[in-house]
Amino acid sequence: MECKQFREFAKDMVDYIGDYLENIRDRRVLPTVEPGYLRPLLPEEAPENPDKWQDVMADIEKVIMPGVTHWHSPRFHAYFPTANSYPAIVADMLSSGIACIGFSWIASPACTELEVVMMDWLGKMLELPKEFLASTNGKGGGIIQGTASEATLVALLGAKAKAVLRAKQEHPEWNDVTIISKLVGYASNQAHSSVERAGLLGGVKLRLLPADEKLRLRGDTLQKAIQEDRHNGLIPFYAVATLGTTNACSFDSLDELGPVCNEESVWLHVDAAYAGSAFICPEFRYLMTGIEHADSFNFNPHKWMLVNFDCSAMWLKDPTYVVNAFNVDPLYLKHDQQGVLPDYRHWQIPLGRRFRALKLWFVLRLYGVRNLQAFIRKHVALAHEFEDLVRQDNRFEIFSEVVLGLVCFRLKGSNERNEILLKRINGHGVIHLVPSKIGDTYFLRLAICSRFTESQDIQLSWNEIRTLADDVLAEDQPGK
Amino acid sequence: MECKQFREFAKDMVDYIGDYLENIRDRRVLPTVEPGYLRPLLPEEAPENPDKWQDVMADIEKVIMPGVTHWHSPRFHAYFPTANSYPAIVADMLSSGIACIGFSWIASPACTELEVVMMDWLGKMLELPKEFLASTNGKGGGIIQGTASEATLVALLGAKAKAVLRAKQEHPEWNDVTIISKLVGYASNQAHSSVERAGLLGGVKLRLLPADEKLRLRGDTLQKAIQEDRHNGLIPFYAVATLGTTNACSFDSLDELGPVCNEESVWLHVDAAYAGSAFICPEFRYLMTGIEHADSFNFNPHKWMLVNFDCSAMWLKDPTYVVNAFNVDPLYLKHDQQGVLPDYRHWQIPLGRRFRALKLWFVLRLYGVRNLQAFIRKHVALAHEFEDLVRQDNRFEIFSEVVLGLVCFRLKGSNERNEILLKRINGHGVIHLVPSKIGDTYFLRLAICSRFTESQDIQLSWNEIRTLADDVLAEDQPGK
Repeated sequence: MECKQFREFAKDMVDYIGDYLENIRDRRVLPTVEPGYLRPLLPEEAPENPDKWQDVMADIEKVIMPGVTHWHSPRFHAYFPTANSYPAIVADMLSSGIACIGFSWIASPACTELEVVMMDWLGKMLELPKEFLASTNGKGGGIIQGTASEATLVALLGAKAKAVLRAKQEHPEWNDVTIISKLVGYASNQAHSSVERAGLLGGVKLRLLPADEKLRLRGDTLQKAIQEDRHNGLIPFYAVATLGTTNACSFDSLDELGPVCNEESVWLHVDAAYAGSAFICPEFRYLMTGIEHADSFNFNPHKWMLVNFDCSAMWLKDPTYVVNAFNVDPLYLKHDQQGVLPDYRHWQIPLGRRFRALKLWFVLRLYGVRNLQAFIRKHVALAHEFEDLVRQDNRFEIFSEVVLGLVCFRLKGSNERNEILLKRINGHGVIHLVPSKIGDTYFLRLAICSRFTESQDIQLSWNEIRTLADDVLAEDQPGK
Repeated sequence: MECKQFREFAKDMVDYIGDYLENIRDRRVLPTVEPGYLRPLLPEEAPENPDKWQDVMADIEKVIMPGVTHWHSPRFHAYFPTANSYPAIVADMLSSGIACIGFSWIASPACTELEVVMMDWLGKMLELPKEFLASTNGKGGGIIQGTASEATLVALLGAKAKAVLRAKQEHPEWNDVTIISKLVGYASNQAHSSVERAGLLGGVKLRLLPADEKLRLRGDTLQKAIQEDRHNGLIPFYAVATLGTTNACSFDSLDELGPVCNEESVWLHVDAAYAGSAFICPEFRYLMTGIEHADSFNFNPHKWMLVNFDCSAMWLKDPTYVVNAFNVDPLYLKHDQQGVLPDYRHWQIPLGRRFRALKLWFVLRLYGVRNLQAFIRKHVALAHEFEDLVRQDNRFEIFSEVVLGLVCFRLKGSNERNEILLKRINGHGVIHLVPSKIGDTYFLRLAICSRFTESQDIQLSWNEIRTLADDVLAEDQPGK
């Protein structure tokens, strides 16, 4: 493809994207295709000779769109939001154009340096403790990871390396295997599945501790578990506090967990994947009280801060242990300026990395802090608007406190009727929700996801739920 | 940012990217900035109110470009290539516009299904054994990973899960810790640093075995190591064969390693990160003789097949063990169509994933197999052209056989004079190389990287090296 064609094709794509997003309400949020729909629409093999770009363009509506779940429709309320904004899209275009691989400073100094500074900008927006910032000349600093799962795993591996080192000093007679078999980490039973998975991947025990009735992991619960485990000869080394769980957007008691972890020399990682974006608003920062006790902190601007996936922001007070855990340094990756700025390959699981700081830069500059705060506040207000609608209908109940942009609710009564309602909602395809279950209680989750969402969309979503609930409840009458 | 501004901004960016790439020869391949150059160019904090997009656009040349290493310059010969093409850039724009997260089928059926079919297209282009393809109704199939590092780790974790299961059946009295402490994996001492790192991350022993004089890991070397380890009570479980090492693009003897691994029930992973793209040309497929013995195979279209990062293609004959190793399945991620098509979240380290199959689709269609083959062949020819230039200058020697697009060479004589030459070359900044070292011999690597590279560029690079060598050798005269 020649440059001239690229300019035509890419500009046509710009218009296609603009049209797609501005008219996304017109599309059914959930596709109707059955598994396997796509293969028959394509040839069995790649073409020998090039197709025309116009044909590829035309196939988007024919082949791709029938199978797309429209995450940016105001009627998409599943999971948590994933970000999408015009400044981020343009920044990723530039990243693709430059297409450098930023595994070391020399591999593209701008790629590393913009990331260091953007992570400082972002850290300041959240009022993170200074120890997390690179500009304070301590050890700390931030990095863009691909996902929160990776951040949780990286923190766990750093904590593991630190714990092994310390145990070896205290018990020179123990080998690595012995020590690792004694390590135990902790999280709430409300933590994201990726925390349990990090334990599996890292090959260490990870205990899921019971949350209290407000779905918070409390300090005394952790303290008790640590004591128990020490008593049994284990080595507590890592704890994850979740701020804004996926199940119900509940918040662990960080202000209680922090002192326990510090006292017990347990690495404290804070996973605020969804909720962290809200901390750019001062009125929500009470939710991260205790953050000064954390060793690492992570949230996803690619969820709720308008930076397209992937951009998971992670800060470390002392990256040394992570760097040492991963450091395998062949000659072809060495360079003369090592040590002045980070070589981010030592801070992450993959070696390669795109120029992702560009989209953070573009979004922060082209929205400005004020508009990003306004965006968060609007979503929280819309969630409360939906909450009010639910509360006004006495057939329904709110399952857990609405703190940010997620409403957990259910029909009063059996789980079964809620399961039927959920199936009806997604089967009808006008809106999309996913359920969750805590203890024995099944409930529905409605997340405010799209940057296009307005009050009228919330009214529509509620009407859809209410109307389908009429049917479910009518069928559920005894004697019917 | 309103849609109208997005269209202007994005189209301006299209032209910027086109101009940047078409005129990339005019830029110094290596930047002259010192570490820390960027911070003073930016404000200390994010702006409160939005900037204009025109100002952001203007800052690209002021802030970013002075610190960019231009990976797509024909004068960039470091590392290995990273891909960049117009079709891939446009496809990634569409991926950003749709911005779905494809962790399960239902989360966007098109995202999963296009990936399944594209991995079949690609597998057929390489003539991979049918067991790797999804269309053959076996268990096999492909997935797009972020990087080869992740593929190596995923394969290791699958192999580990399989080995633990089997050991438990044979020795019900052993627990996981005991078994894992006995596991041992293998790779050549020429394998990429990410293989050693996968062992560290996965918490298992990984032995680096000596390659032969042609830098190949041989079957009898592996066989001997396995016997030794079994004799010592260990459990050999995983081996990585590298096709196209980073050091010198050498090839392990897959046809010897394969039968050993199969016989010994050792999971064989083939890492062809760089060289794999060449296998779309029938004349290079002899380099993967023995591939039918592999359990998993990986190469990076984002290196040498014109698909922008990240697109690392991995195939598994039986993904069951990987899926089971990672499977942590909360209610909010379950859906009704599980099992028909893969839920790719179980095949990878992160949970989230972008719609990356689009760029594979666009590249395969808009180049066609024929032009992709021509691209590979041209790079190999250019490497041989450079090789010939080196061979004609009797001050130089070729270090190892030139098979694909990498030439390893050095000044005859001491390592020191080669180290000086390398420093001169990169200091001068007209071209960019990185060195490597095998045994005691330090040498220079010249990789053909850019899709813009022509014969005249190779001549220029050689002239630069030759001229700087004149200086180095003149200074190196005894008595001077």
